[in-house]
Amino acid sequence: MPTNLHIDPSRLWDAHMQVAKIGPGLRGGNNRQSLTDSDREVRDLFVRWCEEAGLTVTVDRMGSIFARRPGRNNDLPPILAGSHLDTQPTGGRFDGVFGVLAALEVVRTLNDHGVETEAPIEIVNWTNEEGSRFPPPMIASGVFAGVFSLEEGLAKADADGRTIGEELKRIGYAGEAAVGGRPIGAYFECHIEQGPILENEGCQVGVVTGAQGARWYEVDVTGRESHAGTTPMELRRDALLAAAKLVQAVNRIGLDQRPDGRATVGILQARPGSPNVIPGSVFLTVDMRHPEGPTMTAMDEAFRAAAAEIASADDLAIDVREIWHSPPVAFDEACVAAVRAGAEQAGIRHRDIISGAGHDAVYMARVAPTAMIFVPCEGGISHNEAENAKPEDLAAGCGVLLHAMLDRANAR
Amino acid sequence: MPTNLHIDPSRLWDAHMQVAKIGPGLRGGNNRQSLTDSDREVRDLFVRWCEEAGLTVTVDRMGSIFARRPGRNNDLPPILAGSHLDTQPTGGRFDGVFGVLAALEVVRTLNDHGVETEAPIEIVNWTNEEGSRFPPPMIASGVFAGVFSLEEGLAKADADGRTIGEELKRIGYAGEAAVGGRPIGAYFECHIEQGPILENEGCQVGVVTGAQGARWYEVDVTGRESHAGTTPMELRRDALLAAAKLVQAVNRIGLDQRPDGRATVGILQARPGSPNVIPGSVFLTVDMRHPEGPTMTAMDEAFRAAAAEIASADDLAIDVREIWHSPPVAFDEACVAAVRAGAEQAGIRHRDIISGAGHDAVYMARVAPTAMIFVPCEGGISHNEAENAKPEDLAAGCGVLLHAMLDRANAR
Repeated sequence: MPTNLHIDPSRLWDAHMQVAKIGPGLRGGNNRQSLTDSDREVRDLFVRWCEEAGLTVTVDRMGSIFARRPGRNNDLPPILAGSHLDTQPTGGRFDGVFGVLAALEVVRTLNDHGVETEAPIEIVNWTNEEGSRFPPPMIASGVFAGVFSLEEGLAKADADGRTIGEELKRIGYAGEAAVGGRPIGAYFECHIEQGPILENEGCQVGVVTGAQGARWYEVDVTGRESHAGTTPMELRRDALLAAAKLVQAVNRIGLDQRPDGRATVGILQARPGSPNVIPGSVFLTVDMRHPEGPTMTAMDEAFRAAAAEIASADDLAIDVREIWHSPPVAFDEACVAAVRAGAEQAGIRHRDIISGAGHDAVYMARVAPTAMIFVPCEGGISHNEAENAKPEDLAAGCGVLLHAMLDRANAR
Repeated sequence: MPTNLHIDPSRLWDAHMQVAKIGPGLRGGNNRQSLTDSDREVRDLFVRWCEEAGLTVTVDRMGSIFARRPGRNNDLPPILAGSHLDTQPTGGRFDGVFGVLAALEVVRTLNDHGVETEAPIEIVNWTNEEGSRFPPPMIASGVFAGVFSLEEGLAKADADGRTIGEELKRIGYAGEAAVGGRPIGAYFECHIEQGPILENEGCQVGVVTGAQGARWYEVDVTGRESHAGTTPMELRRDALLAAAKLVQAVNRIGLDQRPDGRATVGILQARPGSPNVIPGSVFLTVDMRHPEGPTMTAMDEAFRAAAAEIASADDLAIDVREIWHSPPVAFDEACVAAVRAGAEQAGIRHRDIISGAGHDAVYMARVAPTAMIFVPCEGGISHNEAENAKPEDLAAGCGVLLHAMLDRANAR
């Protein structure tokens, strides 16, 4: 395996800056939502770059773009790397983009040095990872991995009722290749961490060992609406007071499971919402995460017990409904080891880390040996036009990707 | 003083049921907002009833309707009683209506028995007590009492920009009499309690000794918005968690001042309001009440101290702004004594009580000896079409009003 191979940091950064010009946002980031005209423009640019790199481009029926570099033995399943080029409405320049451009940079580097791999290499740009225009997120990799049917995927619609199927036709990316159903040798995805841990600890690379399990709940707290001036304190059934106790209980459940547990109340709506009316009802959401299944179950039990206790003590009703459950995902040991070895070999300060956000890799792990490579982002900020990453961190992650892909591509 | 005088309970109840037909709501109550066509209709009915009772009707420049029954000595300031005929959008049939119709029933009873009082008697229907269409509430009695200027009062506008002045003209109640500026011998107002205390304790009448002071605050809690999945628990600055602690602190401040203290968070808005985003900012309102000024000050200090402590402990910003302050009001001792004597004489189970809601009487207390008479309402419910009161309780309160008014009208 060629160990003196280095990616080109400025070529990698320049590619990011060129992509950032397509579908600009209002504050320095991007608004390049799935299947809009700016998404078409970035797809065209990506396809051109891939063809200039001598790759064979294929578009599947969910519009995901695959670009293939042959290996010595093209019967072997390809080593795939990529991410997504669509962004949030107020998205950053690196979320998803880094994974696609890092894979392209790996290919360009292999070309520069005339390196031939045993297994073929493919780059992928997944359609609609963000799910902001067409919920839910990661739909195209989800169809690839058999989580959704193709029909389901093509039927996902935006707020105006336009479907993915229609919009793919409109922008000319309704490809003909079957979605999935072919073996993938390994899947790697570079991504900014979207959290504060790597930056906090001065690490340049995160060796992602898996993704958290997640559970989302909706909760209705029902007390009794009454007049704030005339109702004595001890005769109240204040839904907001009960909800406040539940918010603190949720926080304690997360704290009890440090360092990997997460427990958050994101939405809280108190009704009727008048300064002098004691809230009679509250709606809130809870988001709980942990990388281990049994711990997720324990957190769920603690949460339901806390809700029951508060309802009983405050003499009101708390209705808890689980609305989404995504199991923890452990990434492939050999792929993770290849990532770790790449960081170690390059002398990069790194640490193991769990992915706290969803990625195409989380679905791909169901159908291929998968791993991710994180790099820090400034302040952990993402889904925000202020999102920022350093050229040297992107380069470090890309170099690790190169190592890991070569490891898997030549490993047979 | 004639002690064998009794009001007519079924005439009193029938009058309520007739008024309830004007501007009906959707669920058995009323939507008869200030200066709408249904307000005009009820005013016309009230004026007709007053004229049929031989009263002289005057409308002042804020549209408040006064109906006068002469006394033996018309140089004496009148003994005034009344309330308001406008309702909330989803209002009940008794809130305000009881005070006006009880005063009318007193006059009808005096007429039935040919009773002559020393001082004249007047009934009043105040314009726009509710303040739901034209904020703020109690505006007409507020102008009468010199809290607002006439210009201010006439300029108050609804959500469509129509002013009280314009609407009074439209419905033909832009009266010519000066607002206030004349002596009032005493002012009495019957009202449903709008709270649960009298019903809870089996009392038919509340002898209202005064009104709570009130303070309203707006609070902004500013933390840091971040991803619910990727942000470790100990690196969060969760504005909703801090707000939850503040909600509990506010509740404790109210409980510490039992039985008369009230402390409520009525509005709480957490932003951005997404299931997987830790709230970075929260807006909330606080409503605090107590009948004693020094205690109100102590509650204010405790609240600000709690906010500062939470902000410091959670490393975020909590900005507290007082937006309204209404001092406690003690009603006139002689008027209160007259009410109490009326209840005792009639053998009615009664107790002293503080008004927890605003009323025209609270402003009138600034310019005339004032007292209120409460009766229970079902479940303490008001500002709700389900508001309900019993005929016998209304009759009991009206009887006490008769006694108190005669006491003050003949007292000189």
